[in-house]
Amino acid sequence: MHTRPHLVLSRSARWLGLAAAVSLAASPARADEGQWMPGQIVELDRAKLSGMGLELPLEQLWSNNTGLMRAAVNLSGCSAAFVSAEGLIATNHHCAHGAIQAVSSVEHDYIKDGFLARTRAEELPGKGLTVRVLERIDDVTAEVLAGAADLSDDRARAQAIDRARKQIVDTCEKPGGGLRCEVAAFYNMSLFQRFTYRELRDVRLVYAPPSAIGEFGGEVDNWMWPRHTGDFTLLRAYVGPGGEPADRADANVPYKPDVWLPVAHSGVKAGDFVAVLGYPGNTERYLPLSEVERYESQIFPARIDIVGEWVAILEELGATDPARGIKVAATKKSHANRLKNARGMLAGFAAIGLLERRRAEEAELEKWAQDSGDRSQREALPALRKLSEERKDSFAHDYLLEQVPHGPNLLGLAIDLVRRARERQKPDLERSASYMDRNEKKLWERQERRLRDFDPEVDAHLLASVIARAQALPAAWKLDAFKDMSPEPAATKPAADGAKDMAAKTGSGRERYLKQARQLIARTKLLGEGKAKALFDGADPAALAASGDPFVALALALAPAIEAAEARAETRAGAASRLGPAYFSMLRKVRSGPVYPDANGTLRLSYASIQGYKPREGLLATPQTTLTGQMAKVTGEDPFTMPERVLAAVPKARESYWADPILGDVPIAFLSTGDTTGGNSGSPVINGRGEFVGLNFDRVWENIAGDFGYSERSRNIVVDVRYLLWLLDKVEDADALLQELGVGGLRVAGARAQVGEGTPGPAAAGAGPERETCPQERRGCGCASSSESTPWWLLGGLLCVGRRRRR
Amino acid sequence: MHTRPHLVLSRSARWLGLAAAVSLAASPARADEGQWMPGQIVELDRAKLSGMGLELPLEQLWSNNTGLMRAAVNLSGCSAAFVSAEGLIATNHHCAHGAIQAVSSVEHDYIKDGFLARTRAEELPGKGLTVRVLERIDDVTAEVLAGAADLSDDRARAQAIDRARKQIVDTCEKPGGGLRCEVAAFYNMSLFQRFTYRELRDVRLVYAPPSAIGEFGGEVDNWMWPRHTGDFTLLRAYVGPGGEPADRADANVPYKPDVWLPVAHSGVKAGDFVAVLGYPGNTERYLPLSEVERYESQIFPARIDIVGEWVAILEELGATDPARGIKVAATKKSHANRLKNARGMLAGFAAIGLLERRRAEEAELEKWAQDSGDRSQREALPALRKLSEERKDSFAHDYLLEQVPHGPNLLGLAIDLVRRARERQKPDLERSASYMDRNEKKLWERQERRLRDFDPEVDAHLLASVIARAQALPAAWKLDAFKDMSPEPAATKPAADGAKDMAAKTGSGRERYLKQARQLIARTKLLGEGKAKALFDGADPAALAASGDPFVALALALAPAIEAAEARAETRAGAASRLGPAYFSMLRKVRSGPVYPDANGTLRLSYASIQGYKPREGLLATPQTTLTGQMAKVTGEDPFTMPERVLAAVPKARESYWADPILGDVPIAFLSTGDTTGGNSGSPVINGRGEFVGLNFDRVWENIAGDFGYSERSRNIVVDVRYLLWLLDKVEDADALLQELGVGGLRVAGARAQVGEGTPGPAAAGAGPERETCPQERRGCGCASSSESTPWWLLGGLLCVGRRRRR
Repeated sequence: MHTRPHLVLSRSARWLGLAAAVSLAASPARADEGQWMPGQIVELDRAKLSGMGLELPLEQLWSNNTGLMRAAVNLSGCSAAFVSAEGLIATNHHCAHGAIQAVSSVEHDYIKDGFLARTRAEELPGKGLTVRVLERIDDVTAEVLAGAADLSDDRARAQAIDRARKQIVDTCEKPGGGLRCEVAAFYNMSLFQRFTYRELRDVRLVYAPPSAIGEFGGEVDNWMWPRHTGDFTLLRAYVGPGGEPADRADANVPYKPDVWLPVAHSGVKAGDFVAVLGYPGNTERYLPLSEVERYESQIFPARIDIVGEWVAILEELGATDPARGIKVAATKKSHANRLKNARGMLAGFAAIGLLERRRAEEAELEKWAQDSGDRSQREALPALRKLSEERKDSFAHDYLLEQVPHGPNLLGLAIDLVRRARERQKPDLERSASYMDRNEKKLWERQERRLRDFDPEVDAHLLASVIARAQALPAAWKLDAFKDMSPEPAATKPAADGAKDMAAKTGSGRERYLKQARQLIARTKLLGEGKAKALFDGADPAALAASGDPFVALALALAPAIEAAEARAETRAGAASRLGPAYFSMLRKVRSGPVYPDANGTLRLSYASIQGYKPREGLLATPQTTLTGQMAKVTGEDPFTMPERVLAAVPKARESYWADPILGDVPIAFLSTGDTTGGNSGSPVINGRGEFVGLNFDRVWENIAGDFGYSERSRNIVVDVRYLLWLLDKVEDADALLQELGVGGLRVAGARAQVGEGTPGPAAAGAGPERETCPQERRGCGCASSSESTPWWLLGGLLCVGRRRRR
Repeated sequence: MHTRPHLVLSRSARWLGLAAAVSLAASPARADEGQWMPGQIVELDRAKLSGMGLELPLEQLWSNNTGLMRAAVNLSGCSAAFVSAEGLIATNHHCAHGAIQAVSSVEHDYIKDGFLARTRAEELPGKGLTVRVLERIDDVTAEVLAGAADLSDDRARAQAIDRARKQIVDTCEKPGGGLRCEVAAFYNMSLFQRFTYRELRDVRLVYAPPSAIGEFGGEVDNWMWPRHTGDFTLLRAYVGPGGEPADRADANVPYKPDVWLPVAHSGVKAGDFVAVLGYPGNTERYLPLSEVERYESQIFPARIDIVGEWVAILEELGATDPARGIKVAATKKSHANRLKNARGMLAGFAAIGLLERRRAEEAELEKWAQDSGDRSQREALPALRKLSEERKDSFAHDYLLEQVPHGPNLLGLAIDLVRRARERQKPDLERSASYMDRNEKKLWERQERRLRDFDPEVDAHLLASVIARAQALPAAWKLDAFKDMSPEPAATKPAADGAKDMAAKTGSGRERYLKQARQLIARTKLLGEGKAKALFDGADPAALAASGDPFVALALALAPAIEAAEARAETRAGAASRLGPAYFSMLRKVRSGPVYPDANGTLRLSYASIQGYKPREGLLATPQTTLTGQMAKVTGEDPFTMPERVLAAVPKARESYWADPILGDVPIAFLSTGDTTGGNSGSPVINGRGEFVGLNFDRVWENIAGDFGYSERSRNIVVDVRYLLWLLDKVEDADALLQELGVGGLRVAGARAQVGEGTPGPAAAGAGPERETCPQERRGCGCASSSESTPWWLLGGLLCVGRRRRR
């Protein structure tokens, strides 16, 4: 049992402020650092984790391709988790945003109003969503590097590794049955593992809250604490009648996961152990210093420049017309997020003194390398610096080409049409990954999105921005494709459409290319019914060249530059694969702290505890928020609105079962010391018994630079599952879902908050007045009446999982 | 001695966040409410104050017109304090801003660079600054109300009271010698007191920090916590050789105050007792409900509307030209402050549920009044509501006229010229107060400011805004003076100067009156050398009518409306003087809490303790900030810059005497539970021994509505005197000033922070290496070597004051 020092603390509330500041400053570093690979779990410090509150044996989290971690799935780049035996999945609202939008219409605005399927028949298609269930992990390092070992040419080396990885994937996916495989690199390419997934393609929408809840606080609160966002959505995965992955079909049946997470009936409190499971996308904690410096001086400033301009375009043009506003909403949101991220990174680098820290480390490395007998290690530092210099030189050119696909839709479409046709000339395994057959469906879906989101005026501005930026490239790196486009004379009078004002604010000088951009759009044929699809399917360079389309012509002219940039990247990747392992092993010699690999989109676990933090001097963040705090933020103006039906339920919220007994209110979000990054969105958060307590959905602004170096201010933001359960219970009356989540029996009239802590809470069956004896500690798995005599709480935390795994 | 519960707390840092939130929420109300009149001090709860940490007998604060509170002076509407025997005064930088600006030039920008007089000869004139030293307070209620008792006509009643008050002031000021008197009303006009001040007119600048320190954080941080602003300035008051108040003259000598505050050598810490002395301007905690409602529905929205437009004008036009930017800076700052205040008030009303609270109280009042045998009390509520209805009806008209003097400079000037001439026809005591002889100097200074700040384009926009708003008045309340001004047709093309854009954003429709406004300005003669002064001095209605100046003509046309509005206000004031006492006495019957009067610009004391607070759910504010926190905010961009000479001193700051032993750093600001409002700017803050520990300069945003009803989130923001002392010592090397402040001996090499708490700190004389034995607890008064054998700390906290008072 936990002792309760907070009761002691509260006696001296008067001293609190200072004491808090002092104790936080003086407390020893609590390094909950690490995004641990499944294979590392059993090697973690059992005593430490047990002291933090983990009750499960580590083996139950992961061993030999089994364990609780398998309940965490990859949902189209986000994380998610199975939370019922019937394939129910919990993830973030923002992870399913595109899918909810895709089934919305003016009549049924599921973004604004939310959505609830009261029966399975009412579940809606989750367009574009796929679920990857991890089947197994295998070390393939020897196989990957076998053909590369003797190659001295860097590009050949990169190609050999690439080819080996693709071959492994190809062989892995051969058996079919919805298998998707990937070969991921770890520890700066010291280790390669093959991940085998079962990919479920029929994913349906079960519950989405109204955007007022799912996006509460919007961009204002994004990355911030305190937070009150109900960023959750429920989905369900379906498979063919035989249990095989299948395209959406009426005959499909709910997928029965091997492992799923039981919903915790008891809540969390400050100090509790939690763990975040999921698929963090990318961190750069072992990146060579010269590259970190380049992020600071070159990459983030460039991103702020170009994405900043694009966000301004989408914002200003989107505001002039509601229909256009809807079209650009998702892209704007994603760009704005990247922009805020880049700004935060720069601020964060400074705040955590990242470069100073890395430079001091580099000096040590330098010294260590001098003394080293190993020639490859001695040579690694200068070689890595040279590589950064090369990247620096071609950066403006390469970065612009890299960004173009995220900008003007028609040009992005044309580039993919042309590139696909060119790549299709090669054998599948030699193609650039996006153009391999296995990615064809995804590639076309991308084009569909572009056609759907296309707006002539927005695209004209984005294209003009690209042209203007191309013209501003240094002489040595000009793009031939744009050489005939010369700017209009600088405007001396305000343009009639306000274009000058906008451009002046965001500054690529695009207004002088707007006319040409509009003309190109006026002349394109790509928008004709079925035209783009025909060119895509045809994949014929000659037909494309003959199409006479101005965007296809532009894309054809750009192709050599794009391919040359890729070749450069390939050569550098080859060098990095050669130098990376040496650098990593040197770094591990001078750097203390736990050894875990950078995030790379593969399954990880981060253990943590629920804790506040000190955002800056004079402020302390406390680790939980509640409905009352949310209501205090409601102004009635976006992004701080609340639907009437929710407001109506609020006055009685404190009396519901879902109210926290300590906070005396329905909890909304909590902070934990989890080590997370992008890709962890939708990550299930479990308590020490392996029960589902919330969904990770963000992290705090002060830790944004944590991607480049762990910081003690590492805090991730989790939406408490009790907020979801309260909504389902008191606002949506979603009895079937609550039953499926194993908490149907807890829809009681009396509040747990009124019950003494530590005593079993009351639980009433269904809507009836009678109370069940099913105790609060029985840890998920439903509360069947047959179990009343069973001391569930003695059977361990993984009961449901165990049962399922026994099948 | 204080116990130190924070040391206990810090053991459980892990639990801190939650515990903090819970204990703050659960802690009983700590009502440090009250802005106490000097006469009330001896009646305060001695046990409570002693428990909080007050060591002085209450009589030493104030009794029979003597006491420590007399060190607090009124500085041109701000508060300030004598801090040396030689007339040195400490106040806020923002209180002296205008005076610093007035002596600045392109060559000597004392706002930007700061200013330090190393000798008395170097002290600069503090233009426009006067210091009022309180001499005595007398009850004059009977005298004020004597002539009004029998009058049934409200206007006659108001005039009788006004006349009596003026007569009392006139008699009081007769003896001359720089006496200034005022009769202030308390408890909704239940009580009247006469305040007799000695007004010192020769006030000089001694030290101003650079604006990077004095305005650190600027508008971004204004009203906010955490705060890192060095909002302090030192001035010195001078008098004639005979000790009499005098205009600035070389022969003048420093004023020797009867009472001054010794600077505390030991710092403050969380939980410490402090008291705020000063001249709070205005609160409305006893305002009738119907008037509070009018603030919410009418007054604040109107202020946001008009001042919001004016701020936008000053901001956008000021940004286009540096010289213009300087001209409008002070006005912009003051308007922006009023704007932020109004917005905060509306948010604050909602946040503290003010109207709900007052309405519940009103229901009780209603019930109580029904049962009351007192007819005047029974009738008060309906009569007050009727009064509010009348005010509501004429509001748009009256409020516009009230705001005009704060807007266009030339119109404001002309109105004062005309009004003065008209008022001069009457005997002095019957004039509107601003136009009485005793205020003549101030009135002309106001015109000088208007002429100095005048910019034709800014004035044109402000004037056009007034005209547009006048034209939009309801039909029953049109202003005849503007009847001939018709709008230009709505622009169909963008105006060449961007005027349309600006107006569109802030929306009075002024762009359609801009041309007329510019024409009026082009035709005025008021800007001619000496012209305005001649018309002011002449004070001749006929000469004004004959002047042919378009602004004078406009002002003449407006005069009847202005005077009619004043007559209405007078009648309502008469009614309020009749109803107010009854309402107050009823209110006190249903309202619990301490009984003190609303702030009215007279001397008050608020006792408090240093404490953090909970700004909103998920955040706690801790009560102290330091240099390190300030440095973390420095971005190099305004308002977060820092001069090189300060940055150079920062690395060694922790080792200086001024570093706090608990914080381990030079403290900058702290929060206390002081009950303050506007006018408390520059208020000295003293510790339990009566020593000067800081200057109040702001309060927190969450308590802004505290003016209308005390809130438990009442926190004022104080700059710690140790920040000033550190700057004077380590950055400015201002030895003479430190000596004068009685801390010259503390300029030691070693840090107090290295000394164990509770033991006397080291102190070295001058720059020499030898240490004085002068202990840390000797409480100001310098550290003369003759005193080394004296146990100073046994003589009580008011030693210096006592010595001075003995003269």
